[in-house]
Amino acid sequence: MPNKVIELFSIKYPIIQAGMIWVSGYKLASAVSNAGGLGLIGAGSMYPNVLREHIQKCKNNTNNPFGVNVPLFYPDLEEILQIIIDEGVKIVFTSAGNPKLYTSFLQDNGIIVAHVVSSVKFALKSQEAGVDAVVAEGFEAGGHNGREESTTFTLIPMVKEKISIPLIAAGGIASGRGMMAAMILGADGVQIGSRFVASEESSAHINFKNKVVETEDGGTDLTLKELTPVRLIKNKFYLQVQELYKHNPNKDELKEFLGRARAKKGMFEGDLEMGELEIGQIAGLIHKIKPAAKIVEEIINEYHQVKNNFM
Amino acid sequence: MPNKVIELFSIKYPIIQAGMIWVSGYKLASAVSNAGGLGLIGAGSMYPNVLREHIQKCKNNTNNPFGVNVPLFYPDLEEILQIIIDEGVKIVFTSAGNPKLYTSFLQDNGIIVAHVVSSVKFALKSQEAGVDAVVAEGFEAGGHNGREESTTFTLIPMVKEKISIPLIAAGGIASGRGMMAAMILGADGVQIGSRFVASEESSAHINFKNKVVETEDGGTDLTLKELTPVRLIKNKFYLQVQELYKHNPNKDELKEFLGRARAKKGMFEGDLEMGELEIGQIAGLIHKIKPAAKIVEEIINEYHQVKNNFM
Repeated sequence: MPNKVIELFSIKYPIIQAGMIWVSGYKLASAVSNAGGLGLIGAGSMYPNVLREHIQKCKNNTNNPFGVNVPLFYPDLEEILQIIIDEGVKIVFTSAGNPKLYTSFLQDNGIIVAHVVSSVKFALKSQEAGVDAVVAEGFEAGGHNGREESTTFTLIPMVKEKISIPLIAAGGIASGRGMMAAMILGADGVQIGSRFVASEESSAHINFKNKVVETEDGGTDLTLKELTPVRLIKNKFYLQVQELYKHNPNKDELKEFLGRARAKKGMFEGDLEMGELEIGQIAGLIHKIKPAAKIVEEIINEYHQVKNNFM
Repeated sequence: MPNKVIELFSIKYPIIQAGMIWVSGYKLASAVSNAGGLGLIGAGSMYPNVLREHIQKCKNNTNNPFGVNVPLFYPDLEEILQIIIDEGVKIVFTSAGNPKLYTSFLQDNGIIVAHVVSSVKFALKSQEAGVDAVVAEGFEAGGHNGREESTTFTLIPMVKEKISIPLIAAGGIASGRGMMAAMILGADGVQIGSRFVASEESSAHINFKNKVVETEDGGTDLTLKELTPVRLIKNKFYLQVQELYKHNPNKDELKEFLGRARAKKGMFEGDLEMGELEIGQIAGLIHKIKPAAKIVEEIINEYHQVKNNFM
C-alpha cells in the first residue's frame, strides 16, 4: 500500500490516530504506532510538564514514529513547542490557528508539520504556509469543528482539486470501508478519532467510552456555534444549552454557562450528565471497546476485503 | 456492473437523478433515462394537470424506465397518485412523510416504491412499511433535509448495517469518485441532484444554473431549521434570514418572512437575490453546465477509471 502519507511519516499504514484532548496520552499513541499507524499525543489538555512526561513515556513504549497534536491557541504555546523540539519529536499536527506562524520554525528543527483545516480556503492557506500535509476534517467529526460545515464527502474532493501536498481525511471514518471511501474521494490517508476513544488504551473515562458505544445515529449535534462550534453527545448539559438558546443568549452568557473544564469533567472524569462529551457522528457505528492494535488490524483487514470483493 | 438497484429498476447504471422541484421536468428525466440512469420527474412543484403533461411527454421521449418523485405532504396527494397510476408510471420515489400510508396502495397498482429518509430510524420504518428501496440522504444534500444532520459518510454505513433492502445514497455525490465511495460505504446505487441542476435539460433558470457553477466550498448553509431545514446558497435572502435570527423570531415570524413561492422565484424565475436557491455542498465541485447524458457518461467513465487505477 505505497502512498504519500506512508512515505511522509515512515509508517506502515496510512492511519493517523487523532490527537484528542483527555483521550490521547502516550498509551494510546504508542499502541497505535506499534500497530503500524501514526499515534498522536494530544497536547491540548496537558500542562507542559505533563506533555514532556507523555513524550518520554511514548519514546519508551515504541520505536516507531509518533507525533504530537498542538492546538495553536494553547496558552503556553512556545514552551510546548520547545519541549517538543527538545524531546526530539519528529512529527507535529497543528490545529485551530494560523499555520504561517510556526510551520517553518518547526521544520527548521527537523519536524514534519501537518495542519488541520475544515475548508478549501484554509487548506490552500496551509499549503501556502509550507506545511508538509493537510488534514481536512468534515462536519461529522467530533469535538471542535469548522464554521463552513462541509462534510467529509464533499470537503475531500474539493480540497483535493486545489492542493498538491499529501491530504489526510478526517471526520466520520472508523472502518476499512470508510478508509477506502475517503481515499477514493482523494485522500492519501485518514485520521481517525472517535473509534480510538473507545479503545482500551485511550485515557477517556470508562463511562465516556461506554457512552460512545451506546450512541446511535442522531445522538450528537454541533452546537455552541457562536463560540467555537463543537460536536457533542446530546446529554443533559447539551439539552440545557438548547434551553438557553430559547432565550437568545449572547456570547458572554454562553461562555459563562459553558464554564471551565467541562470537557475534562465529561471525557476524563466521566460525568455523563454535566460534562462535555465530544464525539463524532460515526459513534453510531462503534459497538465495542477494543485494543487499539485490534482496531488498526480490523480496519486494514476490512480495507483489503472490500478491495477484493468490490473490485 | 450487476447490482440490486439496477435489477430493481431495470436500468443500465445505478444512477438516479433526483426528482427536484422546479428543476426536474420531463426533459431532464427522459434525458437521464435515455442515458441509462433513472430519471425522476419532480411532482412537488407541479399542479396535477402539469404533472400529467410531463409524464406523457416523458413517455414520448424515452422507452426506458423513469419515475416520479412525490413529497407526501403534497396538497392534492391522492389526485397526484391517481394520475401516476392512470398514466402507467412504474416507479415512485416518495419523500417527506410516512411511508406506511401509500406504499402498499402504490405497490398494489404495480408500482415500485422507494422512500427518501435522512436517518437510520426512518430507514428502518421504511423497510417495515414494505418499500422496495430506501434513499438515505445526508446533511450535505441541497434543499429540504433531515433534523439529525447525519452526513452521507456516516449515514450510509449506519443504515446499511440495519436494513437489507436496496440502499441508494444521496447527498454530496456528483462524480464517479463520489459514486464509488458511496457504494463502498454500503450503497447499491446513488441519487444525484445538484450535478443535474446544472445540466442543459434541467428546468432551472439559467441564472440559477450559473450560480451553482460559481458556488464554492462554504457557499451553502442548512437554515430555517425551526420550519423544515433547507440547504440554500448564501444569497441576500439567506443573509436576511440570518439577520432575522438575531431577534429570536418564532416559527410564525419565520414563516411570514419566508412567504410563498420563494423557491420558484429563485430556482425557476432566476431571482438570485431574493429567491431560495436550493443546492447541495457538492456545488463546489461543479464547474460547468453540461448535457445530462454527458454527465452520466462522465460519472460512469470516472467510476471505471478510479476502479482500475485504485485497485
